[in-house]
Amino acid sequence: MKNLFFYKLEEAVRTNNSRLCIGLDPRVDDIPAPFCNEDDPIFAFNKAIIDATSPFACAFKPNFAFYEAAGIEGITSLKKTIDYISPEIPIIADAKRSDIGSTAEAYAQSIFDYFHCDAVTVSPYLGEDSLAPYLNFKDKGIFVLCLTSNPGSMDFQIPNDLHIQVAQKVMRWNTAGNCGLVVGATKPEYLKIVRDIAPDIPFLIPGIGAQGGDLEKVLEFAPQGDGTGYIINVSRGITQPSGEGDFITRVTEAAARYHKLIHIAKENMA
Amino acid sequence: MKNLFFYKLEEAVRTNNSRLCIGLDPRVDDIPAPFCNEDDPIFAFNKAIIDATSPFACAFKPNFAFYEAAGIEGITSLKKTIDYISPEIPIIADAKRSDIGSTAEAYAQSIFDYFHCDAVTVSPYLGEDSLAPYLNFKDKGIFVLCLTSNPGSMDFQIPNDLHIQVAQKVMRWNTAGNCGLVVGATKPEYLKIVRDIAPDIPFLIPGIGAQGGDLEKVLEFAPQGDGTGYIINVSRGITQPSGEGDFITRVTEAAARYHKLIHIAKENMA
Repeated sequence: MKNLFFYKLEEAVRTNNSRLCIGLDPRVDDIPAPFCNEDDPIFAFNKAIIDATSPFACAFKPNFAFYEAAGIEGITSLKKTIDYISPEIPIIADAKRSDIGSTAEAYAQSIFDYFHCDAVTVSPYLGEDSLAPYLNFKDKGIFVLCLTSNPGSMDFQIPNDLHIQVAQKVMRWNTAGNCGLVVGATKPEYLKIVRDIAPDIPFLIPGIGAQGGDLEKVLEFAPQGDGTGYIINVSRGITQPSGEGDFITRVTEAAARYHKLIHIAKENMA
Repeated sequence: MKNLFFYKLEEAVRTNNSRLCIGLDPRVDDIPAPFCNEDDPIFAFNKAIIDATSPFACAFKPNFAFYEAAGIEGITSLKKTIDYISPEIPIIADAKRSDIGSTAEAYAQSIFDYFHCDAVTVSPYLGEDSLAPYLNFKDKGIFVLCLTSNPGSMDFQIPNDLHIQVAQKVMRWNTAGNCGLVVGATKPEYLKIVRDIAPDIPFLIPGIGAQGGDLEKVLEFAPQGDGTGYIINVSRGITQPSGEGDFITRVTEAAARYHKLIHIAKENMA
């Protein structure tokens, strides 16, 4: 059973023949010169990236932190960015919120009713009642942090097998078919464990690109039996491309390259 | 060793003879009529509460969720609220952010450089690199979620002894003396365990009031050896007071009552 969000996501995957989710994480200090002269540099920067990369993307994922760092102006840019993205490409609010039930309700309201995002990332530390208000949005996508891509996943997650426990609980909580799991690309062997526990849950996979995850290993383990059920996020690898020359040309090339890399890796698996 | 934040907090504790932290969590639908007619109802509501309760408070703790639920207008109200509070009363940003290191930097910048809060709450699920950017603000207070007050603390925290592991790690990470722990009032026996592990770390204790924590039991276990090192948060119990009659009178009475209850409970312990 696919809910509205996962149906919309699969449509975008099919239309653009892409499992590439593009992270929109503008670091104000790194925005190239031409955009800085615009009225709203963050939005101008994002708009150019969205225009250039939409043909390669199955989803966009703005991380709220980078907008909040610029205060109310930045949050205004976030709202404009979300409103600008084509309604055919789903938007995942990377907010990783984590609070008790009555407060989580307010966060869910912000993400879904105010920002009109299609999906959200949430942290499971506070347990079921902290996730229930999001899960009540049955048409949306709720990506629960399971195994993160950073070194600190060795502090609490892996030593306690939290990735296993989270995957098991999310299987139970997924009665509306609206759950996904965030599983980092930097530890493919653990990703396999999570896939074995949660065969039907779509994965949002960060950690490719700047963080150095191994795409082929990830694609060996991530797909569901029918080859669906995962998207690969790249942020800095596309929006802060290396090299010289016109910035947007480099962004476009980076998006095309990751789009192709995912296909090549999939073919190598087949 | 007390850093600047904990020094400021202890000054406020002394000046107002209070360990009561007041949560500023405005639910737009519950704001009483007179404030709804103001240009900025959330700010008008908060301003009245701050004016009425400042003599009873050692800190104010706005939970960002309730402002974000009202979108950019709500976040504007949050900024105005923070700017309005007397500089002598510390402000704890209850944001419970949780992201990988490079992103946590942006959140820390938002909380400390943009909103100018004195302290923040953060979630430990992503481990050390996700907390380091906050800890680098050596003059601020970093309250790490340890044991939360909600039913969902039984999902991952308690079954895995995460409260113990978090307390142990925070003891190590506290090299600047800027760490605190969030330990819910609803499970005093676990609070005692955390206190035994982390004798020197100040506690921020939610869960009294609407959530039903037992104040006397909490005050039996929370203090450090010298009787300091904890603050008790009440949100709805003060800002959504029961009863009839003038709203602000009831808010003032509720703040005075909790202020007194903490003193009585302390005396009963002595």
